[in-house]
Amino acid sequence: MSADPAGGVTATRATLAEVAERAGVSISTVSKVLNGRSGVSGDTRARIEALLADHQYNPRNPGPNHAPLIEVLCFEIDSSWAAEALAAIERVARRRGVGVVVSGTSDRQKPDLGWIEGVLNRRPVGVVLVASNLLPEQMQQLRSRNVPFVMLGPAGDVPPDVPTIGSADWSGAYAAARHLIELGHREIAVITGPEDMMAATARLSGFRAALEGAGLTLRPEHLRRGEFHHDDGIVQGRALLSLPQPPTAVLTSSDVHALGVYEAARALGFAIPSQLSVVGFDDLKVARWAGPALTTVRVPIAEMAARAVELALEVRADTAPAPMRIDLATTLVVRDSTAPPRL
Amino acid sequence: MSADPAGGVTATRATLAEVAERAGVSISTVSKVLNGRSGVSGDTRARIEALLADHQYNPRNPGPNHAPLIEVLCFEIDSSWAAEALAAIERVARRRGVGVVVSGTSDRQKPDLGWIEGVLNRRPVGVVLVASNLLPEQMQQLRSRNVPFVMLGPAGDVPPDVPTIGSADWSGAYAAARHLIELGHREIAVITGPEDMMAATARLSGFRAALEGAGLTLRPEHLRRGEFHHDDGIVQGRALLSLPQPPTAVLTSSDVHALGVYEAARALGFAIPSQLSVVGFDDLKVARWAGPALTTVRVPIAEMAARAVELALEVRADTAPAPMRIDLATTLVVRDSTAPPRL
Repeated sequence: MSADPAGGVTATRATLAEVAERAGVSISTVSKVLNGRSGVSGDTRARIEALLADHQYNPRNPGPNHAPLIEVLCFEIDSSWAAEALAAIERVARRRGVGVVVSGTSDRQKPDLGWIEGVLNRRPVGVVLVASNLLPEQMQQLRSRNVPFVMLGPAGDVPPDVPTIGSADWSGAYAAARHLIELGHREIAVITGPEDMMAATARLSGFRAALEGAGLTLRPEHLRRGEFHHDDGIVQGRALLSLPQPPTAVLTSSDVHALGVYEAARALGFAIPSQLSVVGFDDLKVARWAGPALTTVRVPIAEMAARAVELALEVRADTAPAPMRIDLATTLVVRDSTAPPRL
Repeated sequence: MSADPAGGVTATRATLAEVAERAGVSISTVSKVLNGRSGVSGDTRARIEALLADHQYNPRNPGPNHAPLIEVLCFEIDSSWAAEALAAIERVARRRGVGVVVSGTSDRQKPDLGWIEGVLNRRPVGVVLVASNLLPEQMQQLRSRNVPFVMLGPAGDVPPDVPTIGSADWSGAYAAARHLIELGHREIAVITGPEDMMAATARLSGFRAALEGAGLTLRPEHLRRGEFHHDDGIVQGRALLSLPQPPTAVLTSSDVHALGVYEAARALGFAIPSQLSVVGFDDLKVARWAGPALTTVRVPIAEMAARAVELALEVRADTAPAPMRIDLATTLVVRDSTAPPRL
C-alpha cells in the first residue's frame, strides 16, 4: 500500500492483500466480510468495512468474483408500476444472459433487514433500485465490492453520484395542466404523491407552473396528498367533490389515484368527463381499461427499466462514463376522461 | 453401485462417484454436467445426463450443493395475476431467508432457451412455475439434481407426480353461474380462457354444470374463447353484444376479460348492470377499481403463492410427503356489476 508523506494512505484503490495487512487479519477474513459470510467478530468486521470504505477497495479482476445476476430491490412489487418495470428488467436481463433476483421492501427509504447480506453473498453484477433507496452505508458496501447500482424512479434523496433513470415529470405535468386550461377549466385541483418521492415533487411543480403561467392559483383546499394507492385517490377525490365549490377538473400524480377519483365521482354522482375531468399519470395498462378511458401522461416505464439494466451493466464493464441522471420523455395521451367544463 | 441379478443397475439412488464410474469419467466431469457448466463434450454430457436420469442420482447431502435461492418461471410477468403471485412468493421467500430469481417466458408450455442452463448453474433449492410449464426432459434434469418444482396455477398437461397448487375453479364457476340464475338471467353467455389452461377448462365446466342444472343451455354463439387479455374481452364482448339476441349476462374466466366486456358495453351503449350483468374471475385489484365495481370469484392468489413456496421448501427438506395437488377455496364476491335482467 502506498503511503503519503504524512504517513496515511493515499486514495488510490487498495487490493485485498493491502486491506488485510492494514487490518491485521488474513486475506480469507477480508474475503469473508466482502462476501457477507459469517465467522468474523463484529469488531473485526467493522474495522474491515471501514478500511474497505476508506480505501476504495477494488478487485483487480472483478469478473470471476461476480455471479451473472442482477439484483432488483422493489417497493410494492404488486403495484402496477413495479410490475411493468419488473417485466421489462427481466426481458432485458434475459437477453443479456443475466438472471434477476427480486426482493421487495416495505420501506421506500431502505431495504428490509438481511437484504444487503444476501446481496453481498450472491455477488451480483449490479443492482437496480425500483422506487426504493439504500442507506448510505449500504451504498458504500456495494461500492467497496465494485457492485454498481442504478436508481429507477428515484425515491428520496439521491446522492448526485448515483446513476438514476427517471422520467421528464415536470414537463409531463406541465402539459397535463395546459391541456385542462386549454379546455377552459379554471377550478383545477391537484392530488399529489408522497413528499419523499422526487417524481411527485416534480409533477406538482409542473402543475403549479402551468397554472401560474395561465394566471390561475391553486387554492389550498384544492391541493391534496396521498401515497400512490387507489384508496388515497378515493379519499382525496371525495374530499374535493364534497367542497362547497368543487373543482371542475383534477390533476393526479398517478393513474391509480385517478381511478380512485373515478370511484369517488361515481359515489357522489359526478359524471366523467361532463361534470368532472380527470387526468392520470404514468399510463399504466389500467388507464386504457378504465371507463371512460383515462387521459394521462405516458411515462415510458419499460424503456426506463431497460435503460436501468443496461446502465448497470455498462457501469460494470467500464465502457461508459454514464451520465448521472437520464430522464426519458413523457407524453400527454388524451383519451375520454377530459372535456370542457360545463358552464 | 449395486447390481441386480440380471447385471443391470437397481433403481436405488446412485451417488456422484457411482455415476462417474459408470460413465467412465471423473467425478469433476459429472459435477460440471450437474451444475450446467461448460467444458464437457456433447456426447459425454448426453451420456451423463442419461445415467443421472436412469439412476435417480441423489446427492447424499444436498445442503451445501444448493444456493439459498428459489427460481420462479412466470408467463407474462406484467399480468396482474402474475404480479400478485410474485409479490406473495417474494414475501414468503424473504421471511425464509431465500432469494428469488425471476424469469419470464413467452411460451406458457416451456421456458425460453437458456433457462434450464441458468437454473442448473445457480443450483436453487426449488422452482415455482407460475402459469407455466416445463418440457419432460427439463423436469428430469431438475429431478436428477434433486431440485423440486411446484406448479402454481398449472398450464397444460400436468404429470400426476408434479406437486401443484391451484384453486377450486369448478366450484367458483358454479357459484358464479348460480348467482346469475338466481337473479333471473336465462340468456347467459360465457367467455372462456385458452384451451391449454386447466383452470380455464375447469371454469367452463363449472359454468356449464350450473346452467344445465337449472335447465338452461349455453347457446353455441354465446360461448366465446380468448387468451386472458383485455383485448380478447373487448373483441368477444362486442361479438356477444352485436348478436340479434344479445345475452343479458356474461360469465368470464378472468377479471381482465370482464373489463374488456365493460369497454365493449360502453362502446355499444349497454349499461352495466341494468342492461348487462358481468361476472369476473380471480378478484384482482382491478376488480375493485372498475366502474361499477366488479362481481367476481375470488381466487386466493397470495395464499396459493405462499403455499407453493412452502411446498417447494418442504419437498426439499423431505419433511412432508406432500399431497400432489392442493386446490384452495374460491369465493363469490358480489359487487355492483350484476343485477336482475330488465324484463
